[in-house]
Amino acid sequence: MRVTLDIKKLPDKWYNIIPDLEFEVAPPMSPSGYPLGFHDLEPLASHAIIEQELEKDKREVQIPGELHDLYKEWRPTPLHRAERLEKRLGTPARIFYKYEGGSPSGSYEFNTAVVQAFYASHEGTKQLIAATGNGEWGASLAAACNYFDIKCKVYMVRASYEERAYGRYVMELLGAEVVPSPNESTRTGSRVLSQDPDSSGSLGIALSEAFEEASKRDDAKFAWGTVMNYVILHQTLIGLEARLQMKEAGAQPDICISAVGGGSGFGGLVFPFYHERKEGGRFIAVETASAPSLSKGRFAYDYSDSDGFAPLLKMYTIGHGYVPPNIRAGGMRYHGISPLVSALYREKRIEAKTYTQRQAFEAGLEFARAEGFVPSPESSYAIKAVVDEALACKERKERKNILFLLSTNSNLDIAIFKDFLEGAVEDRLASDERIDAAVKDLPQVATG
Amino acid sequence: MRVTLDIKKLPDKWYNIIPDLEFEVAPPMSPSGYPLGFHDLEPLASHAIIEQELEKDKREVQIPGELHDLYKEWRPTPLHRAERLEKRLGTPARIFYKYEGGSPSGSYEFNTAVVQAFYASHEGTKQLIAATGNGEWGASLAAACNYFDIKCKVYMVRASYEERAYGRYVMELLGAEVVPSPNESTRTGSRVLSQDPDSSGSLGIALSEAFEEASKRDDAKFAWGTVMNYVILHQTLIGLEARLQMKEAGAQPDICISAVGGGSGFGGLVFPFYHERKEGGRFIAVETASAPSLSKGRFAYDYSDSDGFAPLLKMYTIGHGYVPPNIRAGGMRYHGISPLVSALYREKRIEAKTYTQRQAFEAGLEFARAEGFVPSPESSYAIKAVVDEALACKERKERKNILFLLSTNSNLDIAIFKDFLEGAVEDRLASDERIDAAVKDLPQVATG
Repeated sequence: MRVTLDIKKLPDKWYNIIPDLEFEVAPPMSPSGYPLGFHDLEPLASHAIIEQELEKDKREVQIPGELHDLYKEWRPTPLHRAERLEKRLGTPARIFYKYEGGSPSGSYEFNTAVVQAFYASHEGTKQLIAATGNGEWGASLAAACNYFDIKCKVYMVRASYEERAYGRYVMELLGAEVVPSPNESTRTGSRVLSQDPDSSGSLGIALSEAFEEASKRDDAKFAWGTVMNYVILHQTLIGLEARLQMKEAGAQPDICISAVGGGSGFGGLVFPFYHERKEGGRFIAVETASAPSLSKGRFAYDYSDSDGFAPLLKMYTIGHGYVPPNIRAGGMRYHGISPLVSALYREKRIEAKTYTQRQAFEAGLEFARAEGFVPSPESSYAIKAVVDEALACKERKERKNILFLLSTNSNLDIAIFKDFLEGAVEDRLASDERIDAAVKDLPQVATG
Repeated sequence: MRVTLDIKKLPDKWYNIIPDLEFEVAPPMSPSGYPLGFHDLEPLASHAIIEQELEKDKREVQIPGELHDLYKEWRPTPLHRAERLEKRLGTPARIFYKYEGGSPSGSYEFNTAVVQAFYASHEGTKQLIAATGNGEWGASLAAACNYFDIKCKVYMVRASYEERAYGRYVMELLGAEVVPSPNESTRTGSRVLSQDPDSSGSLGIALSEAFEEASKRDDAKFAWGTVMNYVILHQTLIGLEARLQMKEAGAQPDICISAVGGGSGFGGLVFPFYHERKEGGRFIAVETASAPSLSKGRFAYDYSDSDGFAPLLKMYTIGHGYVPPNIRAGGMRYHGISPLVSALYREKRIEAKTYTQRQAFEAGLEFARAEGFVPSPESSYAIKAVVDEALACKERKERKNILFLLSTNSNLDIAIFKDFLEGAVEDRLASDERIDAAVKDLPQVATG
């Protein structure tokens, strides 16, 4: 069953959760220990974006008319009920998913990519620069930059650049400049390569390189794909629409589930449900056992990139120096989780669950055979949690409403599922010892 | 701009063009020269499907309620106006496309796959058997079979089975049995392999093998993905919806364009516009220069498979024995074109255009950079014709409405575009001499 939403009901405001929180969220910080203000962030992002990042009072932020029209090209996105999956599981629970894979780039990340390209273009920026793991964020940004006739450059983690060509191909086909990270053209890249000429890179390194270039250039800005408040703000369209659609379906969610990498998909789905949650309602963030920031990290200020060019953020972190094992859900390998999501976890308003990639792929295949298409690796983590909750409902004979985010079209990732089917995928758990070592090395900040 | 259609306006009848044609369409024929009736086709397809194939009088065929509900999971599909592409081309023409890539399988072929699986399941069939080139039809059928809890077996052209793994992976992930064709398990396969143990196969051979197995088994039926009347009937939902949406947009099409492989996408889009076409309105079928059935073939009865197990069809054909050069738009390599589309071409009601794959890919990339996503190779052929017509409008300062079919989500095909970008794709034209030789070898039928 599909619940559509009339195009006229597309929300015209994003939702800012900060005024609705019962507690403070620690601000981004400079390495020398003072809270960052507008001017500190100016080299990195468009003015409108910085205002959104720092907005503490308005719970609704107006979407510019031109962007609202653009959103209508693919939004509202559909909400589906996965009745065939329910039947396969034999559960009395009702399973709903919000599907974001039908965006032009095939990913929910397009929701924020168009906003960042829009403001950049309106403020005279010529190029957006970003870091990407397996290429989904980069592909969304490349497409959005074309819409507004600005250039796009992407530092792509070298391991993915070389091994997982499809994500890179899409960016290149769309005309973006894609460079492998570490790259000799930056200070960070040179440093890393001088220590290890064969370095396969990490998202933290790619972020440092992209920050470094963006902050040195007057005609370019940096573009975050997740983590920051403003990215989650843009993603709240997901939850705002889902709220209307769940009402239409007569089903208030008992459990909302999303995978977390940096936290923007999770925040986008969950935040609009936060202050009208059911008595006993639950929000579950699903992590990979390869980078369990919420479950095993420390809540502290840490660098958001490897070399400390980017703001310090107070978040659950397994340490900016820790490079998680290489798994195919590249977006989930980041060392921290958005400060907003981290604060909610700290205050016990949300739960975290951790699964291995083999557990995720198995659940993803179960979904595919029921619903007709293969979900992305990231979304498969969410599905594993959904399946577990649905089976718990079966045992307890409870007819709960479970809502999850299916964030991304999966076709670029088919090969990894095939490897899994053939038994060629290993679980790669994070090392507790190495996390311990990495969090001992967190930066010292005055107020931290 | 996107033109949606309310889910309540999803058509509840398919459109059968046959009663509206001003001329006769030659029936399918047995190799011994008599028109095939219900009982001849019985081993191959469900009863309901055969009735649809032979339906000559009713111009509307009711969609069963259960199927209509299922269609609502992804239909009506959106109609888009490609304004950014118009702007890049500087054309006064308005370019619209009907987008079928948002179906669960990512392809328009799902429109008929669910119907065939539905009837098979209702008539007690345990398995559907099909032939596929690069795997898109097979993937749609595999997904549909899961919906109705029946098995799926696919003979896949060996060249694609080995080289183009993503299409095969999807079928296997969905639980289908995929075997390379030619295959020793069939008479046709044994014959071919005894002559050439390294044969890379062809769609005609795969069809023969699938027919052979389906006709020998009581519990299985064959499933066509294109060519036949009933497949086009199911695909008319595309054009029926587009007609409503173009009205909504206030734009009657001057030119309707679709790629043709077997003809089901073209027929699905164009037939519902046929009897309310504009004065001077045009319908353009776009072929690949690697298999130019309409442009260079002969209008005659020919086998629809390599070994003559399947019905003889009166169509434009470059000869069942001709194996076109290997191109990546695998669905366009079939040796003939649906009898309905062929008859319209014979009667000069539609036009054909021919392009090489490099021309198609170049237009596809132009589209991608404007609209944000890479179209499938097949749809790129249509886009090349669209671009040419839009540029002609520019030269003549005409504000025509151009409508085309974007049939398939492209992500499985990204690699070929990358090869193209790197200059590694060659044009592979069909050989006139070999076509001449192949059409000299057409079967002799009594009434042919």
